[in-house]
Amino acid sequence: MEKVEDQNPQQEEDQVVNPWEVSAKDGGKIDYDKLIDKFGCQRLDQSFVDRVQRLTSRPPHVFLRRGVFFAHRDFNDILDAYERGQKFYLYTGRGPSSEALHLGHLIPFMFTKYLQDAFKVPLVIQLTDDEKCMWKNLSVEESQRLARENAKDIIACGFDISKTFIFSDFDYVGGAFYKNMVKVAKCVTYNKVVGIFGFTGEDHIGKVSFPPVQAVPSFPSSFPHLFSGKDDLRCLIPCAIDQDPYFRMTRDVAPRIGYHKPALIESLFFPALQGETGKMSASDPNSAIYVTDSAKDIKYKVNKHAFTGGQETIEKHRQYGANLEVDIPIKYLNFFLEDDAELEHIKKEYGAGRMLTGEVKKRLIEVLTEIVERHQRARAAVTDEMVDAFMAVRPLPNMFD
Amino acid sequence: MEKVEDQNPQQEEDQVVNPWEVSAKDGGKIDYDKLIDKFGCQRLDQSFVDRVQRLTSRPPHVFLRRGVFFAHRDFNDILDAYERGQKFYLYTGRGPSSEALHLGHLIPFMFTKYLQDAFKVPLVIQLTDDEKCMWKNLSVEESQRLARENAKDIIACGFDISKTFIFSDFDYVGGAFYKNMVKVAKCVTYNKVVGIFGFTGEDHIGKVSFPPVQAVPSFPSSFPHLFSGKDDLRCLIPCAIDQDPYFRMTRDVAPRIGYHKPALIESLFFPALQGETGKMSASDPNSAIYVTDSAKDIKYKVNKHAFTGGQETIEKHRQYGANLEVDIPIKYLNFFLEDDAELEHIKKEYGAGRMLTGEVKKRLIEVLTEIVERHQRARAAVTDEMVDAFMAVRPLPNMFD
Repeated sequence: MEKVEDQNPQQEEDQVVNPWEVSAKDGGKIDYDKLIDKFGCQRLDQSFVDRVQRLTSRPPHVFLRRGVFFAHRDFNDILDAYERGQKFYLYTGRGPSSEALHLGHLIPFMFTKYLQDAFKVPLVIQLTDDEKCMWKNLSVEESQRLARENAKDIIACGFDISKTFIFSDFDYVGGAFYKNMVKVAKCVTYNKVVGIFGFTGEDHIGKVSFPPVQAVPSFPSSFPHLFSGKDDLRCLIPCAIDQDPYFRMTRDVAPRIGYHKPALIESLFFPALQGETGKMSASDPNSAIYVTDSAKDIKYKVNKHAFTGGQETIEKHRQYGANLEVDIPIKYLNFFLEDDAELEHIKKEYGAGRMLTGEVKKRLIEVLTEIVERHQRARAAVTDEMVDAFMAVRPLPNMFD
Repeated sequence: MEKVEDQNPQQEEDQVVNPWEVSAKDGGKIDYDKLIDKFGCQRLDQSFVDRVQRLTSRPPHVFLRRGVFFAHRDFNDILDAYERGQKFYLYTGRGPSSEALHLGHLIPFMFTKYLQDAFKVPLVIQLTDDEKCMWKNLSVEESQRLARENAKDIIACGFDISKTFIFSDFDYVGGAFYKNMVKVAKCVTYNKVVGIFGFTGEDHIGKVSFPPVQAVPSFPSSFPHLFSGKDDLRCLIPCAIDQDPYFRMTRDVAPRIGYHKPALIESLFFPALQGETGKMSASDPNSAIYVTDSAKDIKYKVNKHAFTGGQETIEKHRQYGANLEVDIPIKYLNFFLEDDAELEHIKKEYGAGRMLTGEVKKRLIEVLTEIVERHQRARAAVTDEMVDAFMAVRPLPNMFD
């Protein structure tokens, strides 16, 4: 029996990580080792990176080789099965609570696209418009509008339409999907969800009802138009680690209703511009780079708001070098600068004080601007017809090719 | 603001009436006056019976004129609107937990058929296979099979296919229906459902999630194929009074999400053969007359198990007469003997001791046998194609004719 530890944020004096709140202890940094320990997942070590490279015959994604995806559950089982010739499917998602995504939102999608390409497997993407309608007090219509807008950003990440099904809960819940929701709900007590998610008696019952909705895309039978007759297909979920509570619950239930436990591959949080102790906040546009930002916005935000580890004066900087541990430009480059050699060079020079903060920021601005402008071009090319096509309930005959 | 009193069966020392439990205080009778007072509904008095007769130009149904349907919420509003030429729709349902229905199960359907015929209005019938799957620990498949079997019994009651939509939750939940579920769920706290339904922390979250499923057929927008563009259509729900908690919750929420409160017309409970203090129990086949019983079964059950108010000896009976207050044959005849004059005659003669228990039972056996055999013939004529036709998601162009 795997460890399925409940955590009630109300009773935590420590760091809080759940799908709706991420906060470190006393304004410090998230302790990811502690998190792995508490959640009961596994660290994703170098042997996995090497194995993925060998199995897929392509260089591992930057998020994999730099430890952005740093934890997993049963990823080894997925790779074992893959090695035996058994395919799997990918499941990821997004809660559409805002018009514009920031770069942190793109991370699971960029990585999932890599996994889809590398393993040649189908993908389901859940847009939890129902969740956001309930948590954010949006209307049904507004949640669905945001889901469609967000779908355009997701499609712009380059997913293969012959292998990808995007769905809105408000549209798709029902039938086989609803039956699985009921099967899951029967196995989870109210006390259990209180333990996992920290709900209180004054929370509305929509919140209590929601966890099965996010659970059941883990089961192939929830998608009869895709996986009919493939009940044994395993599911791999790339996500940020704050989603782990949902899937701890799902993994606890799965064998009791005759399904495989979904495997997980889980990422770090993408830090706010103000530093790892801060949070990217929708109410503070200067805390994050949005995919809608102009080159000018990016330049302004990085120069004005990025927290750095550089010293107060040039003299001191030359003498002591930058503190890379807290430096946001370095952290961002770690996510987005593909060239390992260049990154190493920057870290070495900057850390030794030979490179100045302004120079590092300048390089980061170039990198971010290129990513954001590429995304904007790709998104502009996404038509409503393409959204309809990705979201159509249809078989995907070539999904394993 | 109407009275929406919570009742927690756990904290009640008194009678308990909720959708899953009906028990009187200290094994006595259900006190319906107290129930009306506690629930905050209204007594359905003679003026309603007269008004229905006048508006529909037909004799009121026996269940109406004999007080079987004895309570209501806003039935006057439905009649006011009807008088102004505004139609409404009917909503009733069944939790398909057993193969064979007993006579008590048929009562809301017999009455609803009368209302459909008399007012010429459409009807939606919800089969809560999801509920029974969750409460009775049936499999999804078994719950759906029972739903279909029960649909045959319901269709056998004679509903007009041009005005009737029967649906299984497992098939129909989704889309507009699911959107309304979420809207309702957002307005109801966990503490609120604990107050209304008495759930505990060890109950599974399927139970907590279910009340919105039974709530939303009250809103026409849950059925876009039927009522598109008719968001203002009022809903009347004929049901036994143990379902009132669901609709108290629904009526509390409705105006907050822009819908009419559904109106209700509520019936007494149909007593067990062993008397009003007993419960009809699926585990005791002798506690009820089932629609699958043979003439021989009925004769045996009535003669052997019906609790009577007759005296111990013929001599005493001739002297004191029968106690009609506790006599089950009289209560059953009150539900099912259509001839008012004959019923009055029997009550008078039996109460005075001039008629013996055996004679009353003989008449009851005739009445029940006729009803059950008529039902069995009607049910035998219900084909799978007819079930499919009633359950097809389709417009009903003549539903108000």
